[in-house]
Amino acid sequence: MGSIVRGGGTTVVGVTNTYGMPVVAIVGDGQLARMMQTEAIELGIGTRLLAGSNEASAAQVIADARLGDYTSLNDLQEATAGTDAVTFDHEHVPNEHLQVLIDADVNPEPRPAALIYAQDKLEQRIRLRDLGAPVPEFAGIASADDAKAFWDFVDGAVCLKATRGGYDGKGVWFPDTLDECLELVEELLGRGVPLMGERKVPFERELSAMVARRRSGEVAAWQVAESIQDGGVCRVTIAPAPGISPELAKRAEDLACRIATELDVTGVLAVELFEAGGEILVNELAMRPHNTGHWTQNGCVTSQFEQHLRAVLDWPLGSTTPTAPVTVMVNTLGGDADPEMPMGQRVAAVMEKYPQAKIHLYGKQWRPGRKMGHVNVVADTVEVARAVAEDAANYIINATWLDEE
Amino acid sequence: MGSIVRGGGTTVVGVTNTYGMPVVAIVGDGQLARMMQTEAIELGIGTRLLAGSNEASAAQVIADARLGDYTSLNDLQEATAGTDAVTFDHEHVPNEHLQVLIDADVNPEPRPAALIYAQDKLEQRIRLRDLGAPVPEFAGIASADDAKAFWDFVDGAVCLKATRGGYDGKGVWFPDTLDECLELVEELLGRGVPLMGERKVPFERELSAMVARRRSGEVAAWQVAESIQDGGVCRVTIAPAPGISPELAKRAEDLACRIATELDVTGVLAVELFEAGGEILVNELAMRPHNTGHWTQNGCVTSQFEQHLRAVLDWPLGSTTPTAPVTVMVNTLGGDADPEMPMGQRVAAVMEKYPQAKIHLYGKQWRPGRKMGHVNVVADTVEVARAVAEDAANYIINATWLDEE
Repeated sequence: MGSIVRGGGTTVVGVTNTYGMPVVAIVGDGQLARMMQTEAIELGIGTRLLAGSNEASAAQVIADARLGDYTSLNDLQEATAGTDAVTFDHEHVPNEHLQVLIDADVNPEPRPAALIYAQDKLEQRIRLRDLGAPVPEFAGIASADDAKAFWDFVDGAVCLKATRGGYDGKGVWFPDTLDECLELVEELLGRGVPLMGERKVPFERELSAMVARRRSGEVAAWQVAESIQDGGVCRVTIAPAPGISPELAKRAEDLACRIATELDVTGVLAVELFEAGGEILVNELAMRPHNTGHWTQNGCVTSQFEQHLRAVLDWPLGSTTPTAPVTVMVNTLGGDADPEMPMGQRVAAVMEKYPQAKIHLYGKQWRPGRKMGHVNVVADTVEVARAVAEDAANYIINATWLDEE
Repeated sequence: MGSIVRGGGTTVVGVTNTYGMPVVAIVGDGQLARMMQTEAIELGIGTRLLAGSNEASAAQVIADARLGDYTSLNDLQEATAGTDAVTFDHEHVPNEHLQVLIDADVNPEPRPAALIYAQDKLEQRIRLRDLGAPVPEFAGIASADDAKAFWDFVDGAVCLKATRGGYDGKGVWFPDTLDECLELVEELLGRGVPLMGERKVPFERELSAMVARRRSGEVAAWQVAESIQDGGVCRVTIAPAPGISPELAKRAEDLACRIATELDVTGVLAVELFEAGGEILVNELAMRPHNTGHWTQNGCVTSQFEQHLRAVLDWPLGSTTPTAPVTVMVNTLGGDADPEMPMGQRVAAVMEKYPQAKIHLYGKQWRPGRKMGHVNVVADTVEVARAVAEDAANYIINATWLDEE
């Protein structure tokens, strides 16, 4: 018996190509990197991972995983040297480090000049407004006076946001009174949290317009989906968005394509939208595969993970044609308690009840609210697909069927 | 920068479950093991690989890959200890070793009592005949006299087969004259190759009836496909088999289900069939995912690789409903020469011309005739799907389009 080997890991160090195929470095070790890997395997693309832990979701499944810190220039340099493209499963890599990589002919996709608009919400709002894209009214908040002025301007309909570092509902506050608002602002500014204010928008639902773009300029859009959030976290996606008018769908797609092009985004771009009164407003941007695009794994010719790899390599994009009338995705978010029944047993029970359900799990330990996996179900109607996906996801989370609760 | 890690590899040694999910040991490092891994990642199943080389197709993509020899009991024991199931990407693991593993509560799927019928063609023929399954006339050949008698019995329509070790057309001979036959037999027996004779069947086409079965008894069948061979190697699969009568398709499916059940097969079983005059005869059996089932990756709710993992874990089987009217798979078999154009460039050209083509590559170095990958294309008609898949595969092999040749 030989020693344990790490797949091709020991041999690809410093080698850019495996059998004439490119190698992509992925920075960030979560489920998005993990699901890129499944597509990389099938396409024969090499991958190298910069992971924070060898137990992380993606580190479990990428043979050439390197332990390091994505805020360390040295670690980034070592993990990306000689690769054909570098991409990310989050937006938190310091842009100044990416610029150093670019200067050394490393190829991060997207570029920091684009990424800044996914990293800094205020910069993003300013840029989108300049483009004429529909955004809620907003202002930078650098003092209590700024906060007071903005409160008056929007008649107290204030959403306060950290301009950097927020995600999944974190870094967003809705103060009910001016006093509460001012107190929050003073506390947050005092802690060095950069802030902006935004008009709290009364919306009917949230949409997600997803596209991919490559450096050569090609852009491909998926059908617009509806995203149902729970406490700021995506819980359900329905594709296509039920009842959306072709005109509004077209407008949302065009907007996402235009943002991708104007901001020089490469890879997948998710444009999260508010829909209200037949109008759309941009809520957030993400420049990577996105939770609201997981449905594409089982409902579309080309999944967002394959498309992202193609796009960051500047390869022609794949067909975004749906393969079913409706696809519903439901996240399996860690419940309040971890059921005694082992996960494998829960999975088997769902497989027994729903042979058509597509179960995706991320190799993560339970934590309340944690994104641990998702279930995709395709069907002819939203009702059927959603009922199956909700029941399946609930069983994976709680080990109970919905009609037993 | 920390040291290079091998994903979860360093931590799963001796640990059977990752976050409540099972671990499957895979023996054999080819593309079948590689494609099991893509499904294992999505399902959150842990994998451990026994690989002959750290550059092998599957070893490149499985973090916990262990270098060893599948004919060594010790290597098998070390690679499979503490896993929930053990499965294979080929049929060549010695059955006596598998029995030792079973005695130590390791769980190989399928069991050696079933595997023998995929390993030894004569045992298989005898067993199938006893079941009343349609097989060509056959006889064991232990001497030149046996060969002479069989030659006379089938009027010279002799197919000579090594009973063990053959695959992809290797180990099969078609002698044209009795002298040639006797010479071959003496030479092969002299080299210790165990032989059998079989009536050479004049068939119209080859079919593949694939099923999966789990220990609890559940069996699921995919639609019957047509398989087009070139020199004994599968080159094209068309699903469903064009023009097949529902009655014949049902008969083929039922036969495969019955064989799986009677032989106690667990995992995927491929029953390769000859079709002639509205009748079917069993050609070969394979007890693992099979080339003629690659179309399921993009043309079916549950791929053969996911189904195999479910089956060997005794989990409920997934839906085998097709997702498109027709799926065509074309292998990319290494051409006579390796084109100068790097593989990545060929892939990009195919993506440009055919955004709907699904390209699968195995991370293998070029060799003439080698199975290096395949292309799946779904469409409404065989003509459309096959034209695209053939042209795409040809470009990946030769860097030329068919209409340029």
